[in-house]
This record gives sequence, structure tokens and C-alpha cells, in this order.
Amino acid sequence: MVTEVKVISFYDTLRRDTDEIFEAIFRHPMVVELCAGTLPEQKWAYYLCQDYQYLRDFKQALGLALVQVDTPREIFDWIDRISGLADLEAKRHLTWARRLGLTEDDLLSAEPDPMALVYRQHMLLAAHRSLGELLAALVPCPATYMEIADRAVERIPDHPIYGEWVRSYSYLNPEISARRAWWGRTLDRLAEAASPRELQRMHTNFVRSCKYEWMFWDMAYHMRGWPV
Amino acid sequence: MVTEVKVISFYDTLRRDTDEIFEAIFRHPMVVELCAGTLPEQKWAYYLCQDYQYLRDFKQALGLALVQVDTPREIFDWIDRISGLADLEAKRHLTWARRLGLTEDDLLSAEPDPMALVYRQHMLLAAHRSLGELLAALVPCPATYMEIADRAVERIPDHPIYGEWVRSYSYLNPEISARRAWWGRTLDRLAEAASPRELQRMHTNFVRSCKYEWMFWDMAYHMRGWPV
Amino acid sequence: MVTEVKVISFYDTLRRDTDEIFEAIFRHPMVVELCAGTLPEQKWAYYLCQDYQYLRDFKQALGLALVQVDTPREIFDWIDRISGLADLEAKRHLTWARRLGLTEDDLLSAEPDPMALVYRQHMLLAAHRSLGELLAALVPCPATYMEIADRAVERIPDHPIYGEWVRSYSYLNPEISARRAWWGRTLDRLAEAASPRELQRMHTNFVRSCKYEWMFWDMAYHMRGWPV
Amino acid sequence: MVTEVKVISFYDTLRRDTDEIFEAIFRHPMVVELCAGTLPEQKWAYYLCQDYQYLRDFKQALGLALVQVDTPREIFDWIDRISGLADLEAKRHLTWARRLGLTEDDLLSAEPDPMALVYRQHMLLAAHRSLGELLAALVPCPATYMEIADRAVERIPDHPIYGEWVRSYSYLNPEISARRAWWGRTLDRLAEAASPRELQRMHTNFVRSCKYEWMFWDMAYHMRGWPV
Repeated sequence: MVTEVKVISFYDTLRRDTDEIFEAIFRHPMVVELCAGTLPEQKWAYYLCQDYQYLRDFKQALGLALVQVDTPREIFDWIDRISGLADLEAKRHLTWARRLGLTEDDLLSAEPDPMALVYRQHMLLAAHRSLGELLAALVPCPATYMEIADRAVERIPDHPIYGEWVRSYSYLNPEISARRAWWGRTLDRLAEAASPRELQRMHTNFVRSCKYEWMFWDMAYHMRGWPV
Repeated sequence: MVTEVKVISFYDTLRRDTDEIFEAIFRHPMVVELCAGTLPEQKWAYYLCQDYQYLRDFKQALGLALVQVDTPREIFDWIDRISGLADLEAKRHLTWARRLGLTEDDLLSAEPDPMALVYRQHMLLAAHRSLGELLAALVPCPATYMEIADRAVERIPDHPIYGEWVRSYSYLNPEISARRAWWGRTLDRLAEAASPRELQRMHTNFVRSCKYEWMFWDMAYHMRGWPV
Repeated sequence: MVTEVKVISFYDTLRRDTDEIFEAIFRHPMVVELCAGTLPEQKWAYYLCQDYQYLRDFKQALGLALVQVDTPREIFDWIDRISGLADLEAKRHLTWARRLGLTEDDLLSAEPDPMALVYRQHMLLAAHRSLGELLAALVPCPATYMEIADRAVERIPDHPIYGEWVRSYSYLNPEISARRAWWGRTLDRLAEAASPRELQRMHTNFVRSCKYEWMFWDMAYHMRGWPV
Repeated sequence: MVTEVKVISFYDTLRRDTDEIFEAIFRHPMVVELCAGTLPEQKWAYYLCQDYQYLRDFKQALGLALVQVDTPREIFDWIDRISGLADLEAKRHLTWARRLGLTEDDLLSAEPDPMALVYRQHMLLAAHRSLGELLAALVPCPATYMEIADRAVERIPDHPIYGEWVRSYSYLNPEISARRAWWGRTLDRLAEAASPRELQRMHTNFVRSCKYEWMFWDMAYHMRGWPV
């Protein structure tokens, strides 16, 4: 008889506890149509504006985190994350924007959707609290994007933007792959050093960000805006 | 011939620019039924939980602001605001909660509605930025409540909770009346000392908080919760 | 045979680890002459200006802390601390200032001494990090003051200001006595909930604040100011 | 007759108002002996530990600033500053440390000198307030270093570390030269957008950082440490 002991990491626990939300994201029409290449471009344009502003706040939240990082090696790691975002993602967004006839100014001056604001504020406030709470709020974005892209990679959509989206977030992209493990590993490491209360907040933040991911796709698909 | 020059204060400008949102709030069924005394109590219970958590963040935001206040006299003023809230409003909420069979624990452990979170986070982030941006985000709450209550005061609803709500936020309540002018006057004073960029952010924050007020009533009326 | 087990609280540990610094404070000429009533008033005036600015930052740091406090009851406790300081200590400082021919403006516009700044900044930064780190940085001020005053109370100096200083911080003052236990008890409670890393920072902050207390008295005694 | 109108920038004003402090820095024995190549290496080792910790906080302060930067282009600029520091200066410090028999751990675990702490805390608190106040607190470090190095460049000290110090901060280093103008230009731009109150704080922060620069050299020269 063999007793198998499997140590389940903090990230694994979080992933398991949010599995239903992940599945709801995979099934959302915005995600389905994006991966099928059939998404109306005006919905993508709405998404792009909101996401460009989201990316800016993501970078700012990482910047806030630097103050809680103690060793130069860790600071390097975090700066690498910020630079990566600044360099890769923001530039790609601008390329897509140009294809849709939008300038960077259009992206930055678009009226923020309340459902985008709630997610962006959630990240920034977490960054004001602690490194662990911030990372728990940040990880659902790369985690869901990579899983969506990985599932779509066998049938890459025949659309210049949507096809590139899938390729760039999937395991086909070596830059993404290289950084992939960093998110979960760093989250696990921060969880080990956290107090019980912080650990609980990390859990809450992760779950909420997963929900916000669904709501972000949903807001873009319906191009909602303000109700008043 | 007499040329009349009317100096319009910053608060007056903000109030004018948000008049349509104020009107939409006055017309919202949650507000109408509250003032008519016909609001189903389960909707009020939903509101009460969200608002109790909102009040806590309101106090915390005021606390954050203390770091930007320079003279002891101003610190007094702000502490008086915090104490007032802590004392009056929170206690009143607890009385209403008991009437509905809810404990303080019920209020604090209720799952936050995303539409309440977006408003609470908006306040806390403003508090991290500057005193002016914070106050601009805070004032719509007392401003709309007092205007709603003043309009309802001629026909105070015959309901133990809703009637007290109207009385306590209207000009009938001397404590509210005494503090009434403080909000607008302090906002005007902070606007005078603000840079053009901060002034623009103050305007944005005020307008957004007015919209969040409408969305808060709306969330409670429909008892929305998370879509996922 | 009886085995006596004594549970030593976090505060007790901190107090033991800083005993030499406490003793150095008790022996410092500024403290000795204050308690003997022989301190030159111009040294006290220098102290008073720096301490009035310190008290303002102390209050602001407590304000920052409110954002990390979760229940209304705790918020009450903290506000009570802030109000107490605003009310009691600041007013007493102003009375002493008038006796020395100084106005509140004189106190607030005095050039901050770098040794006062280092202490004030230490508190404010701790407040930006966590409640535990803040409280650990704050407690040495009331703790050393109360111990100094308690030791001096048998021979209260025959000086209108210095005598009142001793009385007001000693166990003779019922208001101080009532709050006395709160500081250590709250620190112990926060220590229990802290992660090992935060606990270490709390220790560092407490030790540093004790050293800053000595340096504050020393700066005032020598009326140092800026070296350049 | 010709009336010459010279527009003096904010940085020029600050530089003029701190000329005496700059001169005091140039005359300080630590700086004189560094540029002459005669500085005892143990004093340099003391400096190196404190400065390595200072550099870490400098980077963290820049990170905090990202939250106040609105456009991706500006975020790029700031990240470039942080990366530059992380890459160039920190690595150079480690090379010097090895030459003196010190590891990175030695640098990071050295007991912080209170005179280094006061400067580091000053930067971090400024970063919590506003971008302008932060930059005003940061610029004196590169500004004084570059002026010291430029004056020393004609007689570069014949010492492996001190010689490299002079070369690397002087106009001989193309990387430093390229970034040189950025500091003053950005400070001027932020000053233009500042409110009068923020402008005054920027002035205070710049002057204080210049004084802290002198005190930092002085602390290292005397290897002071804690007085208690």
C-alpha cells in the first residue's frame, strides 16, 4: 500500500476554490467569440480602451509594491514584471488600437466603465496594503488569460488581432512561458510569510479579482458604461 | 444700470453640473419608497448591511485625511466629523438593525455588493491622494441625503425607521444642520488652494460619487450581489 | 515542587530589551533637570516647539491607522486616543507656551530640528505600513513619559510647568492611568496576529523609538538645530 | 540700452538658494579626501553600507511615484530611472564592496545610521505625498554627486574605487550625461503644474535633502552610529 501525500500549494488552493468562476469565464460569449475569431470589433475596441487604462494601473500597483520589497534581487524581479508590461503589452495594445483606427489618446481619454474602475481600484488599494494582498489581486489576470489562450491554441482564430491575442498569452509565447511560473511561485512564497489575517485577505482578493475578470469581459461584451 | 456679479462657489458649480444625477436619485424607486414609507423592509436590510460597511470606510477615509491636515484646529474639525459619524450614524444603524433582527456581526459580515465596493474603494483611494480629492468624493453622500430628507420633511413617512431617517438627515435635526455648511465651505477652501490638475480630479470625484450614490440605491433596491 | 510558568507578554519583552535605553533616558540631564525643576526655560521652549509638531504628527499617524482597523468598536478606541491627544496634550502645550510668551504660530512655524524630524518620519512611515508597526513606534513615547513621571512623583518639582508635567503623566492623573493599560494590551494583541516578519519590524520600531526618545531629549537640551 | 530678461527655472532657483550648502559639501573632508584619493577605506566601507540601503529606498520611492504618473510614456521614463539605478549603481556598489571584502548581505544587514535613516525616510514620505515633492527630495543626490565629480575630473584620484567614483558620476560618463538634464527638466515641469502649497513643500524638500547630503557625508566620515 502506498500513501500518496500531495502538498497542495496556496496557488493550487486558490485555483481550486475559483474553478467555477474560471469555467464561467471560459464560457462567457466575449471569451468564446474572441477565441473563435467572431467577436465584433467594436466590442474589442471598447475592451481595448478599458484594458489599456487597466494596464496602466496594473503597472502603478506594481510600482507601489516596490516599497515593500526588501532585497535588490526582488526589486529586479518586480521591475522586470513592470517593464515587461510596459514594453510588451502596452505596445501590442497600441498596435491593435491603430488597426482599429484608435490613437493612444483615444485609449487614455475613454470614459472609464464602472466595472473597469472597480477592478482597477481593487488592485490599487491592495497595493497600498501589502505585497501579498497585491499579488493575490494581480494574479487572476495573467492566470485566466494564459488558461484561456492555452485552451484556444489548437484552433488559433483566423483574425489578425484575436489570433495574435491567443498566441501571445499561450504557451506558444516563450516570454510568457518563462514568466508563467513566477506568479504562482511568488504568491506561494508570500503566503508562507503572511499572518493568518493577511492570508485570508489574500484569498478574498484572489477570488474577487477572478469575479472582476468575468465582469470585465461582460462589461466589454455589453459595452455597458454608466447607468446614470 | 446695475451689473450684478454673482460669484459662484466651487460647490455650487459641482451641484449644478450634477443636477441631472441628483434628480435621478430623487426619482429612484428606492428613494421614493423610502420617503413614502412603503419600502419593503428586506430591501432596507440589504441597504443597511452595505451602508454600515460603507460608513466604516467613510471613517477610515477621514482618518487617512488627517495626515494631510496641518494645523491642530483643522485636525479638530476632521476628528469632529469622524466622531460624529462614529457616534451618531453608526449607533442609529445598529438600532435599526436590531429592529430588523440583525446584529452588528450580521452587518459587518454581510458579503459586500460589488456596487458598494466600487464606491467604498473610490473614497479610500481618493483619501490616499489628497484632502481635496477625498472631500470631493465624500460630499455627495451628505449632500444628497440632506436634499432627499429636506424634500421629504413635509410628509414624514409613518414608519419607525424611514420616518427617523428623514428626520435625522433633514434640517429638522440641529446636529446635521450645524455641520451642513462645513462640507461645502471646506470643499470651496480646498478648491482655492488646489492646482488645476487636482481641481479637475476633484470635479471627477464629485461627479462619480453622485453616480455611485444612485448606483448604491439601485443595488440595494434590486439586492443585486455578484453576477458570478 | 512547583514549577512556576510566567507568560511574558510582547510588551514585557520589548520593555526588557530596552531597559538600558530607558535607564539612559532617566539619567539624561534634560530629564533629570525637568524632574528637579531646575531646567532652564529656554531649553523647555525649544522642546515645546519640537514636541508640538511631534504631537501633530502623532495624531496624523493615528489617523492613518484607522484605515487598518476593521470594527467600529476599535475605530472608537483609536479615535478616543486621537481626541485625547488633541484635547488634553495640545491644549496643555499651548498653556505652557503662553507662559513662555509663545503663540501657537510660534510653535508651528519653528524650524524642525533634524532629530525631531527623524522621529516624526519614523512614526508616519510606520503608519503607512501596518497597525502593529505603527503602535510599536508610538508606545515608547507614552511608556517612557509615564515611567519618568511615576519616578518623579514623590518629589514633584516646585515649578509651574515642570510640576504640572510630572503630575499629568504620572499615575496621579486618572485620565492617563485609565488609558495606560490600553497601549500595552493593544500592542500585545497586534503582536499575536502578526506574521514573523511584521513582529520583527515591530521590535525594531519599538527599539528605535526608544532611542529617538533619548535623542529628542538630547536635541532639546543642547538646542541643536541643523549642522549646515 | 538693452534690457536683458533672463527666465530662471525652478531648478535654477533651488540651486541658487542652496549654493552655500553645495559649497559646504564640496569642502567637507569626506568629499575632499574622496576626490584626492586619500580617504581611509574603512570610512568608505561605512559609507557603502549606508548608501546601498539608501539606493534601495531611492528605488522604492521611485516605485511609489509610478502611481501618480498618468501616461505610459512617463511611466517608461520613471522605470528607466529605476532600472538605471538598479542596474548601474547597485552593481557598481557590489563590485566596490567585494574589493573591500564585503558581501551584499553585509551591506544590507549593516545597522542603519540615524543620519542615513532621516534622509531615507524623508524620501519615502515625500513619495507618499506627491510626485513633485518626491522629485524635489531626490534631485539633490544626483545633482551634488555630478557637481562634485565634474570638479574632480581634471585630477582623477589614483585609487581603484575613488577614481571610478569620479569618472562614473562626471560628464565623462555618457550614461550619466544623457540622463542629467532629465532631473532638472522634470522638476521644472512638475513645478509648473504644482499648487502654491505644493511648490513650497518642493522647495523645503530640496533644501532639506541638500542638508541631508552634507549630513550623510559627515556621518560616514565620523562613522557615527547611534548615540544610545
